[in-house]
Parts: sequence; structure tokens; C-alpha cells
Amino acid sequence: MQVMKNKKCVVLLSGGLDSSTTLFYVKKKGFIPVCLIFDYGQRHRKEVNSAIKIANYAKVDYYIIKTSLPWKGSSLLDRRTSIPNNKEINSKIIPSTYVPARNLIFLSYAVSLAEAIGAEYIFYGANQIDFSGYPDCRKEFIKMLQKAVDVGTKAGVEGKKIKISAPLLNFTKDKIVKLALKLKVPLELTWSCYKGGKKPCGVCDACKLRKIGFEKAKAVDPVK
Amino acid sequence: MQVMKNKKCVVLLSGGLDSSTTLFYVKKKGFIPVCLIFDYGQRHRKEVNSAIKIANYAKVDYYIIKTSLPWKGSSLLDRRTSIPNNKEINSKIIPSTYVPARNLIFLSYAVSLAEAIGAEYIFYGANQIDFSGYPDCRKEFIKMLQKAVDVGTKAGVEGKKIKISAPLLNFTKDKIVKLALKLKVPLELTWSCYKGGKKPCGVCDACKLRKIGFEKAKAVDPVK
Repeated sequence: MQVMKNKKCVVLLSGGLDSSTTLFYVKKKGFIPVCLIFDYGQRHRKEVNSAIKIANYAKVDYYIIKTSLPWKGSSLLDRRTSIPNNKEINSKIIPSTYVPARNLIFLSYAVSLAEAIGAEYIFYGANQIDFSGYPDCRKEFIKMLQKAVDVGTKAGVEGKKIKISAPLLNFTKDKIVKLALKLKVPLELTWSCYKGGKKPCGVCDACKLRKIGFEKAKAVDPVK
Repeated sequence: MQVMKNKKCVVLLSGGLDSSTTLFYVKKKGFIPVCLIFDYGQRHRKEVNSAIKIANYAKVDYYIIKTSLPWKGSSLLDRRTSIPNNKEINSKIIPSTYVPARNLIFLSYAVSLAEAIGAEYIFYGANQIDFSGYPDCRKEFIKMLQKAVDVGTKAGVEGKKIKISAPLLNFTKDKIVKLALKLKVPLELTWSCYKGGKKPCGVCDACKLRKIGFEKAKAVDPVK
């Protein structure tokens, strides 16, 4: 990725490992990020505080979008259901933590922000290697959404293309951990666990993926 | 359009002429709509009340999504700017009332709702004939977004396609008025004017398009 004259970009920041690493990665590349943080009724609302701390640590601007998906349709939103503790992660079965069209919604806001401030890039921490099988974290989705953005925005039709990029898309989790360490991402501020308790549960998919990453990278997770 | 076994659908309802007519049109076709109404910081917030009244009149369920686009980037959101009073509507120039990625955001929520409730169709009142040139009201955009939804949602990858449909896409405004009259849409409850004052301003694009529709249909607009 080349850094263009226009250095403004939008970064979707959840406060987890992947999006935080993405933020520091694009900063290192010379971009001037504006982060988008979503407070959308997630069980692990704690991640919002993490995201704010990380944005402040990185000295970047951010917006917090408070919204809700009152129809829920996900164990990540609906407290009457429980977060699955699967023994193994099977990325071929989409788990109940999938939130209907969530990344489509988040990216839509990002497109709006990018268009309003004249940013050329949107970065998001999607990963399709060590992941839970979420369809909105895959290359095909990004590719098609890109086409919709190209024809469906003023920027797009006027030739000022807004590019959606997921630089960690094909990274293994340990590669992400290694990159985070190299970039000095404040990992102690990040939050991944879906349950959002005092300490990470250690058994949800988010905890398991994070654990795999640190173990394979032979690193110690500062969040315990 | 055939009515399938699954009659649930999502309708984006702004409270204006086109979306209200769309709602009554799909009801007539036998669908059971759930409406989505957005309170997003628009100048003409009055339309939200219209939408609620229309949904109640139609006896359909609805959700109101309260959100904001704090970066604005549109005269429809930013009260420091003014709504243009163009002499003529030139659909080749996108006016300042274009809201960055607005319909992408709205449709994303609609996809989320459709997926959560298992609805097969999303209907929205986009029109690319008598319109202000908004790129997110055009067929190309819907087509590409459809592809993103097909690959980027659980429903899509599992073969339970969610279809985005704009039944009035190629209607002239007078054809929409005639259809509204035929369907007994409570036109007196609708609101189109971008300025959101006590009475319609008569000179903004929304007022002008509405006026053209009623005049060509040789009908009287009950909203004066």
C-alpha cells in the first residue's frame, strides 16, 4: 500500500487485538487516522473503553457512534442467550456471536465519514485466517462492498474512490501478535473477550483465538 | 414480484411520498412489513413523526433507529449551511443535500433486521427518474450492494438470500402520485420538504419534485 498525498484515513476500532494493530500499522505507514468506535449494545461494552484508551494513547481523533440493533439476532447482543464455549473453532460454521450485518453497518458509517472528511482509505481489522467464520470478515465481501461504494457514493461517481482495506486479512493470529509487539501496540489496553467480565473468560472464541496467537508467537498476553 | 411463503419484509420508511407509497404497495402485495425509521439528525426531523403516523395508520410494526453522523458533510444535516433553492433540478449534479453514504447505512440496518427476523425482502422507495441525482438511489448501487449482502451475511452464504428491491425505481413522480392515490396512501400524513418548517417551503428539490408529481398527475397535494 502506497501512502498517497491524502493521508487522512478512517480506522474501525473495536478495542481488540486486530483493530488496534491495524491502527498502529497505518499510523506507522504515515496515515493520519480518524477512528470510529461503536457502542452498539454489545455484551462486551468494555471494549468501547479499551478503544477510547487506545485512540488516546495513539493520539488520534475518534468518533463514538452510539446505536442499537433492537432486533438483536446474536448472542453477542442478547443477554438471554449465552456465548458459546466451543471446544474448537470451526470457521466453517458461523457461530451465534455473528451479529447480522454488523460489519456492513460499521463500514457504511466509515464510508460516510471518509466521504465527509475526504479520506481516501478505510482500514478495518478483518481477518479470514484465524477467525470465527464470520462472512463479513472475508475478502469476497470487501470486494463487493467496494463496488457498491464506487457506484453508490458521490466520491465514487466523481472518481475520488474510497478504498476499503483490511491489511491483516490474511495474517495468522500469531503474525498479528508479532506485528503488534513490533509496533508497540499497548496490548495491555486491548480487550477481546466476548463476555466482557472483569477478566477474560478464556473459553469464548475471541479468547481462544487470542490465546492461540500469543502462544504461537511465544509471547505473554498482558491481559489476564 | 411474486409473494413467497415468507411474507415478512423490511421497509425503509422516511415518511415521504415514495417510501410511504412503497409501504402501501408491498402491503397490497400481501407482505407483512416491518418498517425502519431513522432519526439521524436530519433538518426535517418532522419526517420522523410523519413516518410514525404512517406506520400506525398502516398498522405495521416499526423500529426507530436514533443515530447521528456527527461529521455531517451535507446541507441536510448541517444547519450552518442552507438548503439549495435551485431553479431546476439537474439530476446530473449531485446537490449539497446528498448525505454521505446515507442509504448505504440505512440499507445496512435493514439487512441486519431482515436477517434477524428472517425476512426475505427489503423494500425501499428509491427512484432514479424524477430525482436529485443521488448515486445511492440508482440501480447500479442496489445491484452491487445486493452482491455484498449475498456474500457478506450468514443468510446469504447459507442460501437464504435477502433481496433488496426498489419497486418505484423507474416510476415518474406522477406515476408514484397516481399509485399512492390508488392505494389510498394517507398523503396528508406524508412530509417531503427538506426544511422541515411548519409548511413546505415549495422551493427545495424535495418540494419541487413533489409538486411536479402532483401537477402532472392532475391531483391536489393535501399537504400545503
